[in-house]
Amino acid sequence: MNSIIGLDIGGTKIEGILWRGGKILDSKKIKTPKSRKQFLKAVAQLIQDLKSSRRIQGIGISCAGAIEKKTGKIINSPNMKFLNGLRLSNALSKKFRVVARIENDTNCFLLGEYYFGAARGKRNVVALTLGTGVGGAVLIDGKMLRGRHGSGGELGHIVIHDRQSLEDLTSSHIFKKYKMGGALEVQHKAEGGNLKARQIYRELGKYLGLELASLINIFDPELIILGGGISRGSHLFLRQALVEVKKFCMLPSRLLPPIKISKLKHAGALGAISMFMKS
Amino acid sequence: MNSIIGLDIGGTKIEGILWRGGKILDSKKIKTPKSRKQFLKAVAQLIQDLKSSRRIQGIGISCAGAIEKKTGKIINSPNMKFLNGLRLSNALSKKFRVVARIENDTNCFLLGEYYFGAARGKRNVVALTLGTGVGGAVLIDGKMLRGRHGSGGELGHIVIHDRQSLEDLTSSHIFKKYKMGGALEVQHKAEGGNLKARQIYRELGKYLGLELASLINIFDPELIILGGGISRGSHLFLRQALVEVKKFCMLPSRLLPPIKISKLKHAGALGAISMFMKS
Repeated sequence: MNSIIGLDIGGTKIEGILWRGGKILDSKKIKTPKSRKQFLKAVAQLIQDLKSSRRIQGIGISCAGAIEKKTGKIINSPNMKFLNGLRLSNALSKKFRVVARIENDTNCFLLGEYYFGAARGKRNVVALTLGTGVGGAVLIDGKMLRGRHGSGGELGHIVIHDRQSLEDLTSSHIFKKYKMGGALEVQHKAEGGNLKARQIYRELGKYLGLELASLINIFDPELIILGGGISRGSHLFLRQALVEVKKFCMLPSRLLPPIKISKLKHAGALGAISMFMKS
Repeated sequence: MNSIIGLDIGGTKIEGILWRGGKILDSKKIKTPKSRKQFLKAVAQLIQDLKSSRRIQGIGISCAGAIEKKTGKIINSPNMKFLNGLRLSNALSKKFRVVARIENDTNCFLLGEYYFGAARGKRNVVALTLGTGVGGAVLIDGKMLRGRHGSGGELGHIVIHDRQSLEDLTSSHIFKKYKMGGALEVQHKAEGGNLKARQIYRELGKYLGLELASLINIFDPELIILGGGISRGSHLFLRQALVEVKKFCMLPSRLLPPIKISKLKHAGALGAISMFMKS
C-alpha cells in the first residue's frame, strides 16, 4: 500500500498532507515563499519531510490560480505571480520520480468536499471560497465544469452590481474599503457588538445572496458549499444572504438547496489526493 | 419513412412544421388562443392540418415556461397561465396515438441550433433568447444543463445591477419604461436616427455585455448564440455589449467565444423535432 502526498498551495501558506490507507498520517504547514527558486526549494523540502523514507505513489497539487488542465501549466496565479508559466507538476514529478497531478485550488476544495466532506453522494454542487479572492467550482452530474479552455467556473467574476463582481463585493477587498482591518478583525469587532462591523457583514451577505440566487437559477444544484476564511464569519452574513436567495430564486423555497459552510480540515489537500482515486 | 410534427408554442403565436426525410415539408402558424380549451382545440387542428392523411411517428413540442422533464407537466408558463399544470405531451400523445415529447422553448431553440444551425459540431454552447422575457439554455459537453429539478439554465434571472436581472434589463420590459413603443418600434426609430432610441439600445447592450462576460467566466463556451425578437436589433447593441465583454472577461480577447445572432428559421420547432433523433 503506497502513500500519496497532497499539497494545498495558497498565496500565504502551503499545506501538505501524507495520505495512506484512507487516512491522513501527517500534515505540515509552511509560509509561502516569495520567489520561484525559494518556492521550489521549500516545496521539495516539505514533500521530503512528509514522505521521509517512504515510497510514494503520487503527488497531488491544489494551486491557487488558473491551471491549464492538459499541460499542468500555471497560467495565471494573481497572488503568486512568480509561478506563472511554471509546470509545477512536471517539476515535482521529475524530482521525486512519481506521477504528479495539479488542479485549481477551488476545484480541489470541491473535490475534497465531494470525496470526504459535505458533498459526498451529491452529483450537482456549487462551491464558493470567500477569501483574498473569491473562487468558484461547479460539479454537474458528477463532472467538474471546465469549459473550452479550462477557465470555466470562475464564479467570483460574475458581475453583480454597479459593474462590480462577487470578488469585488464579498472578498477581502471589501474590508479594505472600510479601513477597519481584515476580515477576521472586522468579524471580531462585529461579534463584540460594533455596529459598523455588523453592517459591513450584512452588506456582504446581501451581495452574496444575490449571487447565490443567480447561481441557483443557473445550476439548480443539490448543495451549495462555502469555504475560505471569510466563510467562518457566516453567522454574521448568512441570514441576510438567505433573505435575498428567497427573493430572487425562481424555485419555490421548499426546493432551494441547502447552503453549508465547509467544516472539512485540509479540504484542498484532500481534493488533491482524490485525483489519484478511481471515480 | 415516417413524418414528425414539430410545434413551437409561444405566448403570441404557435408554429408547426411537418418534418420528413430530413426536410421541412410544410409549416403553419396560428395565434395563441387565450384559454386551455381553445388552445387544445387549435393545437389539435394545427397538427391535423399538417399531417393530413399521413401517418406520423411523433410530435415534438417546444413550449415557453418551466417543464418538468420527467412527467412532461407544464409547471409555470408566465405568459400562458392557462397551461399551468397541463401534461400537454400526454394529451397529444393520447389524441394522436403517437409518442409526444415536450421541452422548454429556449432548450429547443438551442437544440435546433445544435442540430441544424450555427451550433452544429459545438459541445459547449450558451443560448439566450431576448424577447418578452429572456430565456437561457446551456449545452455542456453536448448535454443540456438541467440541474436537480430541471430548472437549471435560467440565465434570464441572473442579477446584474441594482437588484435587477437580465430579463429586467434586456427584455421587452426595458422598452415599456421609456414609452416609445415596443422593441421593434424603438428599433425602427433608432435606425431612423432617433437619439433617444439609440441610447436605449446602447444601454441594453451594456447590460447584455455584463451578463455575457459573466456567462463566459462561468461556462467558457465555444459559442454564444442569441435569438428572440430583440436580437434582430443586434446592430444597435452588440458593439456596446462586446466592449463590456472584453472589459469583464477573465479570458484574453483572442480566446473569447464568437457571439452569433440566430439565423435559423423555425429553430424552436426544429429543436422539438430533434428530440426524435439519435444523438
